[in-house]
Amino acid sequence: MSTATREIHLASRPTGWPGPENFRLVETTLEDPADGQVLVRTLVMSVDPYMRGRMNDVKSYVPPFQVDKPLEGGAVGEVVASAADGFAPGDLVLHNYGWREHVLADAKALRKVETPAGLNPSVFLGALGGVGLTAYVGLFDIAAFKEGDTVFVSGAAGAVGSLVGQFAKLRGAKRVIGSAGSAEKVAYLTDELGFDAAFNYRDGDVREQLKAAAPEGIDVYFDNVGGDHLEAAIASLNLYGRIAVCGAISQYNSTEPTPAPRNLALVIGKRLTIRGFIVSDHGDRMKPMLAEVGGWLTEGKIRFNETTVHGLENAPQAFLDMMRGANTGKMLVELS
Amino acid sequence: MSTATREIHLASRPTGWPGPENFRLVETTLEDPADGQVLVRTLVMSVDPYMRGRMNDVKSYVPPFQVDKPLEGGAVGEVVASAADGFAPGDLVLHNYGWREHVLADAKALRKVETPAGLNPSVFLGALGGVGLTAYVGLFDIAAFKEGDTVFVSGAAGAVGSLVGQFAKLRGAKRVIGSAGSAEKVAYLTDELGFDAAFNYRDGDVREQLKAAAPEGIDVYFDNVGGDHLEAAIASLNLYGRIAVCGAISQYNSTEPTPAPRNLALVIGKRLTIRGFIVSDHGDRMKPMLAEVGGWLTEGKIRFNETTVHGLENAPQAFLDMMRGANTGKMLVELS
Repeated sequence: MSTATREIHLASRPTGWPGPENFRLVETTLEDPADGQVLVRTLVMSVDPYMRGRMNDVKSYVPPFQVDKPLEGGAVGEVVASAADGFAPGDLVLHNYGWREHVLADAKALRKVETPAGLNPSVFLGALGGVGLTAYVGLFDIAAFKEGDTVFVSGAAGAVGSLVGQFAKLRGAKRVIGSAGSAEKVAYLTDELGFDAAFNYRDGDVREQLKAAAPEGIDVYFDNVGGDHLEAAIASLNLYGRIAVCGAISQYNSTEPTPAPRNLALVIGKRLTIRGFIVSDHGDRMKPMLAEVGGWLTEGKIRFNETTVHGLENAPQAFLDMMRGANTGKMLVELS
Repeated sequence: MSTATREIHLASRPTGWPGPENFRLVETTLEDPADGQVLVRTLVMSVDPYMRGRMNDVKSYVPPFQVDKPLEGGAVGEVVASAADGFAPGDLVLHNYGWREHVLADAKALRKVETPAGLNPSVFLGALGGVGLTAYVGLFDIAAFKEGDTVFVSGAAGAVGSLVGQFAKLRGAKRVIGSAGSAEKVAYLTDELGFDAAFNYRDGDVREQLKAAAPEGIDVYFDNVGGDHLEAAIASLNLYGRIAVCGAISQYNSTEPTPAPRNLALVIGKRLTIRGFIVSDHGDRMKPMLAEVGGWLTEGKIRFNETTVHGLENAPQAFLDMMRGANTGKMLVELS
């Protein structure tokens, strides 16, 4: 008995900003699981900034998406049928075959999960998934955060950024400052997430706004955007300051290289460290992250907002909206 | 009995490239040492790129030089008269009161040294001084060099650069590449210092020349110059590559910020670390440096060239020539 289902394929590679024309909704049919395979129905899938990079045909830290093939990404699903030991219908599984309503997957590519009491399965795409691990590793390992540090995070209302700021506060930051792209997001950071200060980078010069928000300078910068934010952070960093470079969303859609930061020579006199990282190198930190962040979540100490869109057919627009900053917190697509 | 002597003062602060008009030769008279003081006659003094920064009236990692006061810098001298315990005429001392023929110094500001057999006192201004420590700390600590790494160093014919390349080879580098500003310097690197490859950055695009010299990429970049060299290094660095930022001589005389590197976002996918440092933070590494590098020197395993100018009156021109790259190895001024 085969299963009729739908997938989103990459129709063409975008140049600059992607648009709906780069995506295609495709109807297809899946066979029953062969030996070692599991048929999974997707419950919820993730759209993330890094996917923009995989749409280009360039060698990167993950292979590019293929034109006329389904896109990929983190998703949580429910087992429908199984021909693999250890998986039974109804099991909740985490996998990387997002952008499709069902997938016929090798059991080795699935991880069984159990949702902690009071939380939704989507938590594994957010605070207890790659997003949480990115914030955790970037702040605590790469940027070597320590109690008493003043922390600045850009893209602070986004999924990673909102966790970075809260993690820093929970571990004893002196002051946490965030930047975001609207007055609503700025209010969300200070009023709901407990940031000490926040500013709208569209309101004026980032360097001046950061100096005003952190008159005594910053010790850690968690960089989600690159560009003028990075330059502003270098200007405000104190001696021995550290930058974790997580993303450069301001440049993902550039066709020209970005000529910044112009003040990089300050890394010498200020003894700064700038370190890029990719979360997939740090799987060994998943266990301590789950323990510490899982604890904070069940104690209600962390707010993790989700913007949820419904239906696979709306996934491309959800991705495009996320790239333009329409979401607060994690952008998700529910398929059931 | 007072001592007639001469000093070089900062006549005015340079804007952009300094010139002879920024220096002034001043005749003066020193009293005999008071209690705790020592009168030292300078034998040899150092001129270094970092001094350019101290000529600006800006807060930096060392305070600025004062107009109408003597310049400062590393020097080795001989005690002439002493009113301090532990110092006697004829003792060799290292101090930071360069740019003058004599100095009346507090004994606490002097370090007694003994020249190893076969070496000149100037070794304490070079391979066994701040220069050697800069190369040692930058390569082994900041850039975390490990056996088998391919290393690129800019300004490689300079005092620090020439040591970096040799230290890397002695500790088991797979390949060492240097850049310099003349064909003679390039030949010196490969023919005399044992670099595996070298190029003249004036011959063409630094990025292309580096790619040709390091077809399998580099693991460590020791940055003495900044600018296009830094951008080229980022392009050639392999995964988990490390950059020690020691100097940005290409920018010291700029009045405008330098819009580079344009490819900084590569730090993410390549997981690069860029770290600036100042050698004076790392005094604790002097002992292991003296042991290891002193051993290499007495075994004749290290070449350390000096370009020596004679006479205090020629010190300003020696500094200006050094900033333009006229020296090979360490630039020194002998005063006796």
